[in-house]
Amino acid sequence: MTDHLFTVDPWVLREESFDADTLAVRETLFTLGNGSLGIRGCHEESEAAWWRGSYVNGFYESRPIVYGERAYGFADRYQTILNCTDACQVRLSFQDEHFSPEHAAIENYSRELDLRTGVLKRVLDWLPARTPGTRIRVESERIVPYRERSLMMMRYRVTLLEGAGTVRIVHHLDGDVSNLAAGEDPRTGSHIMPGDFGLESLEMKEECRVFHHFTRMSGLRLCFADMDRYSSVRASEPVTEEGAEGKSAFSGSSAELTGGGSLELLASAAWVHGMVGEEMELEKRALGLVHGSFDKGFDKAVEEQKEFLREFWQEADVLIDGDPEVQQSIRFNLFHLLQGAGRGGSTSLPAKGLTGEGYEGHYFWDTEIYALPFFLYTQPEIAGDLLEYRYRTLSFARGRAAQLNRRGALYPWRTINGNEASAFFPAGTAQYHINADIAYAVVRYLEVSGDETFLAKGTEILVETARFWHDLGDYIPGMDNAFCINCVTGPDEYTALVNNNYYTNIMARENLRNAAHWLEKLREKDEAAWSELAGRVALAEDEPGEWRKAAEAMYLPRDSRLGVHPQDDSFLNKARWEAADIPESKRPLLMHFHPLTIYRYQVLKQADLVLAEMLLGHYFSRAQKKRDFDYYDPLTTADSSLSPCIQGVMAAELGYRESSYRHFMRSVRMDLDDVNGNVRDGVHTAAMAGSWISLVYGFAGFRDNGGVFSFSPSLPDAWNRLTFSLRRGDAALEVTIGHEEAAYYLKRGSELTIIHCGEKHRVCCGTPLVLSLRPELEAVVFDLDGVITDSAEYHYLAWKQLCDELDIPFDRDFNHNLKGVSRMASLDLLLSRTDKVFSSEEKVELATRKNNYYKELIKRIGPGDLLPGIDSLLTELKEVGILVALASASRNAPAILDYLQVRDRFDAITDPASLCKGKPDPEQFFLAAEMLGVPYRNCLGVEDAQAGIDAINDAGMLSVGIGDYLEGASLRLSSTAELSLEKLRELFYR
Amino acid sequence: MTDHLFTVDPWVLREESFDADTLAVRETLFTLGNGSLGIRGCHEESEAAWWRGSYVNGFYESRPIVYGERAYGFADRYQTILNCTDACQVRLSFQDEHFSPEHAAIENYSRELDLRTGVLKRVLDWLPARTPGTRIRVESERIVPYRERSLMMMRYRVTLLEGAGTVRIVHHLDGDVSNLAAGEDPRTGSHIMPGDFGLESLEMKEECRVFHHFTRMSGLRLCFADMDRYSSVRASEPVTEEGAEGKSAFSGSSAELTGGGSLELLASAAWVHGMVGEEMELEKRALGLVHGSFDKGFDKAVEEQKEFLREFWQEADVLIDGDPEVQQSIRFNLFHLLQGAGRGGSTSLPAKGLTGEGYEGHYFWDTEIYALPFFLYTQPEIAGDLLEYRYRTLSFARGRAAQLNRRGALYPWRTINGNEASAFFPAGTAQYHINADIAYAVVRYLEVSGDETFLAKGTEILVETARFWHDLGDYIPGMDNAFCINCVTGPDEYTALVNNNYYTNIMARENLRNAAHWLEKLREKDEAAWSELAGRVALAEDEPGEWRKAAEAMYLPRDSRLGVHPQDDSFLNKARWEAADIPESKRPLLMHFHPLTIYRYQVLKQADLVLAEMLLGHYFSRAQKKRDFDYYDPLTTADSSLSPCIQGVMAAELGYRESSYRHFMRSVRMDLDDVNGNVRDGVHTAAMAGSWISLVYGFAGFRDNGGVFSFSPSLPDAWNRLTFSLRRGDAALEVTIGHEEAAYYLKRGSELTIIHCGEKHRVCCGTPLVLSLRPELEAVVFDLDGVITDSAEYHYLAWKQLCDELDIPFDRDFNHNLKGVSRMASLDLLLSRTDKVFSSEEKVELATRKNNYYKELIKRIGPGDLLPGIDSLLTELKEVGILVALASASRNAPAILDYLQVRDRFDAITDPASLCKGKPDPEQFFLAAEMLGVPYRNCLGVEDAQAGIDAINDAGMLSVGIGDYLEGASLRLSSTAELSLEKLRELFYR
Repeated sequence: MTDHLFTVDPWVLREESFDADTLAVRETLFTLGNGSLGIRGCHEESEAAWWRGSYVNGFYESRPIVYGERAYGFADRYQTILNCTDACQVRLSFQDEHFSPEHAAIENYSRELDLRTGVLKRVLDWLPARTPGTRIRVESERIVPYRERSLMMMRYRVTLLEGAGTVRIVHHLDGDVSNLAAGEDPRTGSHIMPGDFGLESLEMKEECRVFHHFTRMSGLRLCFADMDRYSSVRASEPVTEEGAEGKSAFSGSSAELTGGGSLELLASAAWVHGMVGEEMELEKRALGLVHGSFDKGFDKAVEEQKEFLREFWQEADVLIDGDPEVQQSIRFNLFHLLQGAGRGGSTSLPAKGLTGEGYEGHYFWDTEIYALPFFLYTQPEIAGDLLEYRYRTLSFARGRAAQLNRRGALYPWRTINGNEASAFFPAGTAQYHINADIAYAVVRYLEVSGDETFLAKGTEILVETARFWHDLGDYIPGMDNAFCINCVTGPDEYTALVNNNYYTNIMARENLRNAAHWLEKLREKDEAAWSELAGRVALAEDEPGEWRKAAEAMYLPRDSRLGVHPQDDSFLNKARWEAADIPESKRPLLMHFHPLTIYRYQVLKQADLVLAEMLLGHYFSRAQKKRDFDYYDPLTTADSSLSPCIQGVMAAELGYRESSYRHFMRSVRMDLDDVNGNVRDGVHTAAMAGSWISLVYGFAGFRDNGGVFSFSPSLPDAWNRLTFSLRRGDAALEVTIGHEEAAYYLKRGSELTIIHCGEKHRVCCGTPLVLSLRPELEAVVFDLDGVITDSAEYHYLAWKQLCDELDIPFDRDFNHNLKGVSRMASLDLLLSRTDKVFSSEEKVELATRKNNYYKELIKRIGPGDLLPGIDSLLTELKEVGILVALASASRNAPAILDYLQVRDRFDAITDPASLCKGKPDPEQFFLAAEMLGVPYRNCLGVEDAQAGIDAINDAGMLSVGIGDYLEGASLRLSSTAELSLEKLRELFYR
Repeated sequence: MTDHLFTVDPWVLREESFDADTLAVRETLFTLGNGSLGIRGCHEESEAAWWRGSYVNGFYESRPIVYGERAYGFADRYQTILNCTDACQVRLSFQDEHFSPEHAAIENYSRELDLRTGVLKRVLDWLPARTPGTRIRVESERIVPYRERSLMMMRYRVTLLEGAGTVRIVHHLDGDVSNLAAGEDPRTGSHIMPGDFGLESLEMKEECRVFHHFTRMSGLRLCFADMDRYSSVRASEPVTEEGAEGKSAFSGSSAELTGGGSLELLASAAWVHGMVGEEMELEKRALGLVHGSFDKGFDKAVEEQKEFLREFWQEADVLIDGDPEVQQSIRFNLFHLLQGAGRGGSTSLPAKGLTGEGYEGHYFWDTEIYALPFFLYTQPEIAGDLLEYRYRTLSFARGRAAQLNRRGALYPWRTINGNEASAFFPAGTAQYHINADIAYAVVRYLEVSGDETFLAKGTEILVETARFWHDLGDYIPGMDNAFCINCVTGPDEYTALVNNNYYTNIMARENLRNAAHWLEKLREKDEAAWSELAGRVALAEDEPGEWRKAAEAMYLPRDSRLGVHPQDDSFLNKARWEAADIPESKRPLLMHFHPLTIYRYQVLKQADLVLAEMLLGHYFSRAQKKRDFDYYDPLTTADSSLSPCIQGVMAAELGYRESSYRHFMRSVRMDLDDVNGNVRDGVHTAAMAGSWISLVYGFAGFRDNGGVFSFSPSLPDAWNRLTFSLRRGDAALEVTIGHEEAAYYLKRGSELTIIHCGEKHRVCCGTPLVLSLRPELEAVVFDLDGVITDSAEYHYLAWKQLCDELDIPFDRDFNHNLKGVSRMASLDLLLSRTDKVFSSEEKVELATRKNNYYKELIKRIGPGDLLPGIDSLLTELKEVGILVALASASRNAPAILDYLQVRDRFDAITDPASLCKGKPDPEQFFLAAEMLGVPYRNCLGVEDAQAGIDAINDAGMLSVGIGDYLEGASLRLSSTAELSLEKLRELFYR
């Protein structure tokens, strides 16, 4: 899909013609909801719909899961959100000519959803075919009020602009609804049967049509009530009608209108659900809601909705100056998050919101890992409700753990009622990480919200999930007794049933640590609550210690050859399948290849290691993150809508501006452009929330370290400004990112400490803090050999001495071959010139001998051996306070600096022994910057070797090359004599 | 189940009372079949049955597989062998009193199955309750003739021994049958629906009741025809009746009998199946069969059956002298294998034979790996038919490979019609090893049978399976470009979706090699056939070379720490779950634990590595097999009925007599004692065939190396003699194993080369070759230090020199601490006495220095340093031709023997560098025996250290210990001076 579905507008989604081809997608996008109720944006006139859906969050039906081959402990029952009574159907006719938007002659069409008011409004002029000269304006408006959670209100008005005749409006209430049937795509369709949404009774009560519905297996009840009122202007006395048949009812009115006359239907419908036995209570509430809404009136309800949304946008709005399309999309995304998120703690946010039946209305980890940050920092009350849902379903999670012969609790991979509903365990139950994801969210909430009432509850979740991990993992003798978690599936579902999935292990480690930590914290704050909790969960004295022990022993592998973290124990030993090699016709892979094929390759549905490095970024060096991102990004198909936003964040952190923007754009337009072609089944709430994450964590570089907010902004070139707000306890911070500076403004709260580009600042209420984003030369990182001094001669002499002893010919000519070659490789080159055979032990001895000669020789080095210009440059730098570091591959570097008598001029000297990879990997330069505490982009590197220049450039620093042959240096000088502070500054600020 | 179900008899299974509790098991065990038809051994009187089953091999119904969550490439349809028209129901009444075996008064009851005749016969006297003084003899006999493959014949005779009255016999033909419904156990129950076995028509034709049946989805047709004849003696004119209703028909006869009078029913029924459109042809064949059988008569048919079985037993019989129970069981097992195996190439051997509905009548690898050896060596024609079935279904296997985006062919894990019917891919499609199993069987058949007609067909199977492997595996850079096969499940289903399952990889390697080899062979033998084949499969010129390359690069891991082969890449990095720790109530694990739990542990359903080491034993050293068996046997639950027989074979090979007998007994009595409690669902054909494997490969130590038979017999203590026969081409060899000797007798064929206990012999026709089994002293294996000479002094001096140089205190006292301690460990001990710190490179240098000192010092050794008695012993051994080997841990051993001037007295010197594990692992002693070419049990070892004595004992050799403190030595001497040939001989033959 290339063209936009809607006109670009900062606040409104508007379509200006009726397009039958894209009805399905538009119905999803025009869905109205309030977290409890979701009504797909179908046209009222019944033929003009792809799928009429009305969904009540938490109202579902079960069915036994049928397995091809069942095994012990498999989840028992599907759960499927039910499509409920449809209250939006209207039949309009004029002089017995039936109105149907897809067939009728229409003018002045517009349909729009205003994100400020929450009203879906359609206006059109109908020119009936059979009565030329007639023009009928049809206006419909609909809201799903936030203040009354189970209600939908609708106004349908027909005005005869030209001509005269009889208008008839019939409002249909259809209880004979079912869910979409399952097809080949495992992500869509349900397993329930037509008729699972049963009707017990249908009657008129207190002017309402009242439906009592039931489910067969889940034992739930739903009372639906609807009240209609008709009014007319310039019309004959309307003739009203009403009736019921089977599972449906209707009301109607017809009147003869003269020019300008109108007939209007005002309808309110309520869907109230509960348990068996609560029928009368449900009915009472439904009738109360409907009557109340008529007492209030449609216009008043719209006003309230507007007010509610005004408050929402005040905290949640994101301003993007310079890209109206993104501006529209991000607001649309946030609007839908609000519409889908359950409130009150008995429901959560379905993966598709309440906009369709994809994933059967299930809640996944999407809520905690993707949606929660947005709510936490803008609507913490909703974040609290979402976590309260997890707390209330903890007993089910305990039961599931017991079923799997484990202690503690295991949350379901997908669920509505709290029980596991995943029917394919390798990509379901095996995703134990759900436990750690929830625990992660709990900790974030406890740290940021200031909600003390959740402290004991959250800690209980942490304890039971930690227990599960502790019982699931094992200390493995063959792995040096590391704590290993075997046979799991990580978030990347293109690899299943592996050992030590990195994401799972590090998140479990966090879970184990946090359980111990927050138990202590609870005890400090509220001994009684701690004691109550400890008793209830039968906490053993040594448990927290055991969790900590397991956490410290947690196995977190790194591949020394590649320098990357393997996604799991075996991942790197599979064949690579580059995402770029997969044609569009074979995407998503899961629809074109057997799982056994997909599992056999290094290919990712989503980059879970990259996600771990975002969520727990403080455990990883910049060099590590870069290597890992570089390795995994090309293997990531992004067949999961959860992937691009996270890749976008990490790309931004690593300075990959183009990549970060591209990933973000895929995420932010996922639904509005129907990127994956499946919007008809519902919106992608995780991608929607992910687009906020991409903006805030990506472009603004926001991180929250235990409640301290830090920012490393980097605005996309195409934009002028990005503004958003974040809450922390009582404080509310507005952040505005430009290209040159960032502004921090505390809207509420007394003051807040923030970190801007690595530096701590205080923001006080009412006074904007404006900080520069321009790079500043703060540090220079030098290579040693060929830059500070030249020790090549001593290497030559040392090798020469060894070769003489071994009768191997060696001269300065051959010495050239050793430049940039490691000690052992140099030795091998030399030994190839003799017939003598040496054991590896002997070779080690020879190399050691050479190094000893070298160490002796370099004792001859003195201050006079400093290369020209270096002494004065170091002095200049010192004077202006620019820091200086050494990044040399030589382990003898500190000794040489001593001999040169300049060691005190260096603020940091990297230790090559601590490196995972040498140049041209940028690790050493990142390390130098970290040791100096200077952001990498405020550093400049000086090198005389190509590998060094490449490393500096790859680190995102400016590079100065000493040597005419060097490629890619930001500045090339033929000798160190040409170096000067002035030149460096010029280079930096040009 | 502790008591036997039947009386112990060499040829007959007999029960002497009616036992309602064990009906289900007895029905299975009394099943009669002929490879095409199987009729469960139910009592004729219809109430007295647990499950009346009549099965036609290859006649099945399909149903779509419903998955909890479907994915691309999942198998589409179940296949289920159908329970067909029941022809064995008889209702008997006397004076209107109905006879029911479970309620009636019965005397003189006996029911028996004679394995020589194949007749199931029941005799009993019924004493009707309502007519005291009456005694009615009821005799029934049944056969399923081998000569007429689709026929069952039955005789039911009622004789009035005492009293008089009206006897009525009604024979019911029940077409309203269905399959057992599926329950919780995934191994039993079907997925088809009642009514899937449909009835098209039922009519009388040519005196027969003819049923035309159809299946709904598989599109098959079955014609069932039955003819009944009644006759009477001393009776009134019988009154006959017949009729049909719904899906059933009946015939009957009643007559008034006087004393001694009898009424007899003779019935023949035929089940003939085919495709849609063949109905008339099927009917013709069915009617022909039934009429033919009446022409022949029951007694003649029994005679023919007897003759058929006589021929069978002539080749297949196994005699066990000394254990009547085992004698009965093994014959029973072989009888059932014959009854279940499909003939003619359109069917195979269902896992449960044709005795029940377990595993839905599917064929698995059980046929090729478990059943095939028995057939191959005793009934090669049947082996050929079974492989012909695989050839005929090759096109389906090609289709399946294509479906999985692979080249070549992938055989189904479970099937009837040749398509994959496995509904749980981690334990189904992922078991790619089925390809290699079939290829392995093909090669065995080509080597042994001499059937040239299968050469091109077999090669085609080898080519297509090799292609699949080549396309499935990858050369993995991170594994030194080894050819790896990732994401597979091996035969052990308690571990799934792993990388480089050892069994799979080594069997795939064999498959790849054999494809190339047999293609060459075909070309040599029949260029035209080769050319035709190469064209048909579009063989590329470089393919065989590519297969060989992949085979040579095949990854076959060994864990250097444990010295065992890991079952797969990650197996050893899981927690161990000892089989001994699993209570009976939790077995089988699959019924009590989620797969995710089972997969997470080192726990086995069956020992697949051990199986690989049996099938491809020549690739493994004895030491390796022993270590692997020792490691895996305790982890093996034997939850699979396929496991104990193989463990039994390997235990026998390794000299674990008790263990091998125990494993064998579990296998051989699996069905007769209902060991796993599920015999009611059918017999375990793999375990039955496995019991033959355990006998022949285990106790007789039979191996077939490319057509050369070898034997290493070891009879269980409890037995006197074991006799069996093996065929090879035209030759037939009878083998008799006793405790003292083995006899080889060539029944047919001119001559045969065999290997007996490692030595080659020729067996000529008609002349029994009797060879001894007594161990003979053929070789002595010496340790060096403390046995041949004493170099301890030189070690002391060398360490002393080093310590002096390093200023480390060292004396003879401290030297004691170094005894038996490795060089590096000794160094660490010494360095702990100084404060100096050494790098690991420096330590290597120090250890090397010490060894150099030592090598200098031992140059002082001379002939005079031989320990007392050694010189004369070596001389004595040489004189009588007893071989001598040295098994020392010292790499300086050859040099020391040189200095001692005795190197030429040693026939073999083991190289410690080639060892995986040092003493006390027996590897070095096994190696010495292998180098000498002497069976280990004809060797004797001499040692002065405890670890050495342990190693000798563990190798199964006799041990002589020099030193009073040694535990466990077969003979302990205080000094080498006491050694003499006489003493060694005495020890050996005592």
